Formats: sequence, C-alpha cells, structure tokens
Amino acid sequence: MSAGKLRGLKRIADEEGRFRMMAIDQRGSLQRMLRGVLSREVAYGDLAAIKRAIVKVLSPWSSGTLIDPVYGYPEALKYFPKDVGLLITLEETGAEKVGPSGQERKSRLIAGWDVPKTRRLGADAAKLLIYYRGDASPDVVEHQRRIIREVGEACVRNDIPYVLELVGYPFKEDEDEETYAKRKPEIVFDYVSEFSKPEYNVDILKVEFPANLKYCQEFAAGEFDGQRREPLYDLTAVEGFCKRVTELARVPWVILSAGVDIDEFVENVRIAAENGASGFLGGRAIWQDCVNYYPDIEAVEQCLSTSGVDNFQRLYAASQDATPYFEARPFRGYPRIELEGRGESWYRDY
Amino acid sequence: MSAGKLRGLKRIADEEGRFRMMAIDQRGSLQRMLRGVLSREVAYGDLAAIKRAIVKVLSPWSSGTLIDPVYGYPEALKYFPKDVGLLITLEETGAEKVGPSGQERKSRLIAGWDVPKTRRLGADAAKLLIYYRGDASPDVVEHQRRIIREVGEACVRNDIPYVLELVGYPFKEDEDEETYAKRKPEIVFDYVSEFSKPEYNVDILKVEFPANLKYCQEFAAGEFDGQRREPLYDLTAVEGFCKRVTELARVPWVILSAGVDIDEFVENVRIAAENGASGFLGGRAIWQDCVNYYPDIEAVEQCLSTSGVDNFQRLYAASQDATPYFEARPFRGYPRIELEGRGESWYRDY
Repeated sequence: MSAGKLRGLKRIADEEGRFRMMAIDQRGSLQRMLRGVLSREVAYGDLAAIKRAIVKVLSPWSSGTLIDPVYGYPEALKYFPKDVGLLITLEETGAEKVGPSGQERKSRLIAGWDVPKTRRLGADAAKLLIYYRGDASPDVVEHQRRIIREVGEACVRNDIPYVLELVGYPFKEDEDEETYAKRKPEIVFDYVSEFSKPEYNVDILKVEFPANLKYCQEFAAGEFDGQRREPLYDLTAVEGFCKRVTELARVPWVILSAGVDIDEFVENVRIAAENGASGFLGGRAIWQDCVNYYPDIEAVEQCLSTSGVDNFQRLYAASQDATPYFEARPFRGYPRIELEGRGESWYRDY
Repeated sequence: MSAGKLRGLKRIADEEGRFRMMAIDQRGSLQRMLRGVLSREVAYGDLAAIKRAIVKVLSPWSSGTLIDPVYGYPEALKYFPKDVGLLITLEETGAEKVGPSGQERKSRLIAGWDVPKTRRLGADAAKLLIYYRGDASPDVVEHQRRIIREVGEACVRNDIPYVLELVGYPFKEDEDEETYAKRKPEIVFDYVSEFSKPEYNVDILKVEFPANLKYCQEFAAGEFDGQRREPLYDLTAVEGFCKRVTELARVPWVILSAGVDIDEFVENVRIAAENGASGFLGGRAIWQDCVNYYPDIEAVEQCLSTSGVDNFQRLYAASQDATPYFEARPFRGYPRIELEGRGESWYRDY
C-alpha cells in the first residue's frame, strides 16, 4: 500500500479502524429541503450557513466528515477539528437524465474542482458519487465507468484514498417501489462486484443497504413509516445479502444513509456491521430533522447538539461490530499492511 | 490565509493552538550517537529501528511529529496516530563547509525528495533546516536565502505550511563558546528579522533560544553541566531577548532543542513561552538518553515510555503560557483568520 493512501485511511477511520463518518456534501437535496422551510429562494449563504452549523456541532463526533468544496468547505473549514478526517466531494450534484426512458443517469465532475486541488487542500480522501445501473444503456454504463476509472487514476497519482459512492435508481417501466426493492440486492451486488476490480483503484466502497428494510418481514408491518407492506425477504435473507456484499467487495465497504430516517438507518448499520461492513458514512439520517429550524440557526444548533448527537451515538453503538478497515480485504490485519517500495530507496522512488 | 496552510497549522498544533512538537528527523547527529553505543558500523536498519521506536512511544504525546523521508517515515508511518500532525524534512543532513575559514555552511535539499512529494504523502507541514549567519560570505548568504525562498514558493504552490528552522554557528576566529554566547542574541535577531519578510513565505519559524542559558547569571554556577562560567547576561536580559524575537517575528515561532539536555531545554521553553513563543519542536532533549540502550530495543522503549514521557510532560507544563498560533502575528485571533478568496467562486479560483 502507498504511504498517502494508508495515512488517509487512518485519518478518516477512528482509532478502532472503524468508519464513523458524516456526510454534509448534499447540495441538490439540501436545497430542496431548505426551499421547503423557507418562503423565499435558497441562496448560497443559506446552504453555507446550514453546512457550517452541522460541521460545527456534529463533525467532532465523526471519525471523518465529507463535505463539498462549493458551499461547504470554504465556509466550514475553521470548525474542522484537527483529529477529524476530511473527505472532499468531486461530483457535480444531480445527474443528466438520458436513455430511452429518460430516466438513466449520467454524472459529471464539478467544473473547476479536481483531485489535485483536493490533495493540495490537505484533504484525507476524495469521494465520488455515481448513480449506477449495470443494465442501463451501454453508452451510459461506459460513461459512468470511465469517470470512475479516471478519478481512480487521479487518486493514485495524488496518492489519496478514493471513496466511491454508488447509488442505484429505478429506470425501467415496471420499477415501482416494490419491484425495485426486490431487485435492489442484485443491483448492489452488481456494482460492488464491478467496482471492486483493481482497474478502478477504489479504496472504500460507499454503498446502499442491499435491501429495502421496509419490505423485510420483521419490519414490514410499518415499523419505519407506519405503512404495512407485503414482505419480500426476511431478516436472515437480508443478512445474507450483506454477507454477499462482503464477499464481493475486495475493499472495505461502508453504508450510506440515502435519506432514510434515523431508525431505519440504525437498523441498516447494525445489520451491515454485523455482516462485514466497516462502518457508515451517514448524512441526512443524522441531521435532517434539524434543518427544519432554519433560518433560526441557534435553534438548528440546539437540535443538532441534542438529537443530532443522540443519532450519532446510536450509530456508534449500531456499528460496534463493524470490521476494522485493516481486518477487511485487501489487508486482513494491520501487521500485514506493507508499505509499497519500503526500504532505503523509498524516498527516491516515491 | 489559504485553506491548505490553515488546515496544516491546525493539524500540527494541539487543540489549544500551541505547538508541542517532537523532532525525530535527525540523521547525522543520530548516526554519531549510535556509533558511540554500537561496536560496529551504523546501518540503515539501525536508524530506522530507533526512529520507529521513538515514534511508536512518544509520537502520541506530541501535537505533531517531524520526521525525515529517508530512514524515518517509511519505517515509522504505521505507528503515526491519526490525531498527530505529520511534518516532513526537506534538507539533506549536514552542510558543505565553505568560505575563507572553511567553517561557513551551505545547505542543500535531499536529492530525490521535494515539496510535492511531501504534500502527496499527506503531510501537514514541510520543514527546512538552514544553517545561517547573516555575516557570512555574500555568496553563502545568498545561497542559503535562495533555498529558503524557493522552498517557500513550492510550499505556496502546494498550499502546505512552511516551518523554517534556523541554526547559527560559530565561524569566525574569535568565536569560542563564550564569544559566541555573547553574539547569539544578535545572530538570532538577524535571522528572525530576515526570514520574517513576506518574500520567504514562512509560516512558522523554528529558532534557537536567543541566548546560552549556561552564561545567564541565574544558571552560570553550573546548573546544567556542573561547570561554572562568568555570566554574560541575567534572566531579565534573556527574557528581553525572547521579547525581541517576538517583536521581530511576523509569524508564530517555536523553540528548538539543538542537543541541549532536558533541564536546560525545559528552562528555554518556559522563558520563551512566557515571552511570546508559540511552543516547542524538541528533538534530542526529549529522547536522547534512551538511545544509549540501543540495540536492546525493548530497553529503549521502556526508557522512552518512562523518562521520555516524563520529559514531554515537563515540556507541556513549561509551555503552558505559550501564545496560541492564532493569537500570534499575523493572525491576532482565530476569528480574524479569513480564508483567502472565500465565497461562491472559491472552489474555482483555488
């Protein structure tokens, strides 16, 4: 392993080697949330202010915090604690809708930002979110894979850990909530398997929970949203899906929160952590309720410092069985991690 | 202030904003120490082993640890805690002896290492040691200034904090210990004043104690080495020298240990910290006694974990009145630190 990547992984994990990370790099979705609570247009300063408040109050509870370089970092950097890892976002928010259905998604990078800037900034990892369906149109699939590959190469050149976030989406005519929930495990297996290939140079996979817990027999009576559903799988099957992700992933993986509420996310994290995940990178599930108090920033911060902190503590407990990154593949034990090119000429060859 | 430099400063200071840093980047002097305790040639592995032991046991006690990329970092990186800042050395050990007396010193950088590699590695600061006398031959002075200036430019391009270490030396015929001790304050004032100029882009000055405490009236009876000396100045004058350094330094400054023993270094740190220094970056004073146990690495580590830790705790106490970097010039208060180019187009312009 290279020196920069190893240092970066250590910086974004906690001392146990588990990832207890927070995301506050939302732009489009946060803008929509703010539009809902404000009776006016959402300005740059609104996004900057809410991100600053969230970093200020919750970042100290995280092992690493993910933030965007547009509205987030320049306004929040003074509140980043020294011992919290810094992850920076590379992709433009949203996606271009394309393909026969008009529902397939093409991503692009933030124009004017890149991996070298991320490294120069002193960040500990670069993160790329890609919407991905392996069964989308070939040109869409190839477009998404190419971006992932190119960012991987840039991260190697800049010797910075590469966190690849993958999010599937329904785009076929029959893909209502239930059908999509049924297909979700396979969608997740497919992208985990694809982007575990060495050619993409991914260091951490940030993935969706490989099922929809609302359709899991043990929770289908309306546990999370009061709505009863016909179960598609039981808990044993869901645990099996997580084990399958662990088998397919050639690198440590973490669970993303994708806008589910905190109770469901806690269950996602618990089940994933007990079955091979190395932790979580949670966003809205942790802080979304507090956004409703905006623009009363004092109230936002009071909410964050109580229920936000409580959410974090629940997630810590839920992830206590997570696999430390150094126990996951490709490492299988911290003592086995070997510095690439270690020895007398390392400094010249690096 | 730029984003990378601000993050880096925060990373190498402790949460109070004080620098409690350790240096284990010695090469020539450490080689000489090891030669003294071994009955054979000193090998790469010896230097690597002792550096690894010191990082392992003492690095967690530091706010940041300075290490070289040759024998040090590749062998010790796995022991660096996530919350300890990483400083990397740029200069080749030793110096070329030149000038009419054959005692003037020209420095050079490590061939095969540079600031971009330091940044890519994930380091939080780059450090350059320069032997400097402003009254040396003009070509020597210009040579040393040019290196300092060029490294400053590279640190700006890579947006990484620049720690410049300056060490004077006797080179004139009349410069015996006493004469040199008398001239030392002026030598330190001269280099602090010169390298505070904005053209050098220095972020932290690592300087010598601006007097020789063995010639200070209150310690001249042999306090540190049992040898009585004719005093050259009293404590009030020495405090005045430190205040003068604070006046001349346009950036935070820290005290180096330069091979003095721990009792003298604790006094240096205490007096400097009470008079404007922002902390210390101590090397041999902290760990040198333990090197005598080499090659019994177990004994070295036992020594470090007792007297080494005790030395660190004494230095923490001695530096309790140090000026937090954000209270020193050019900042004058954390709330006054302003991100360069902050605002909507920051990410594009960065």
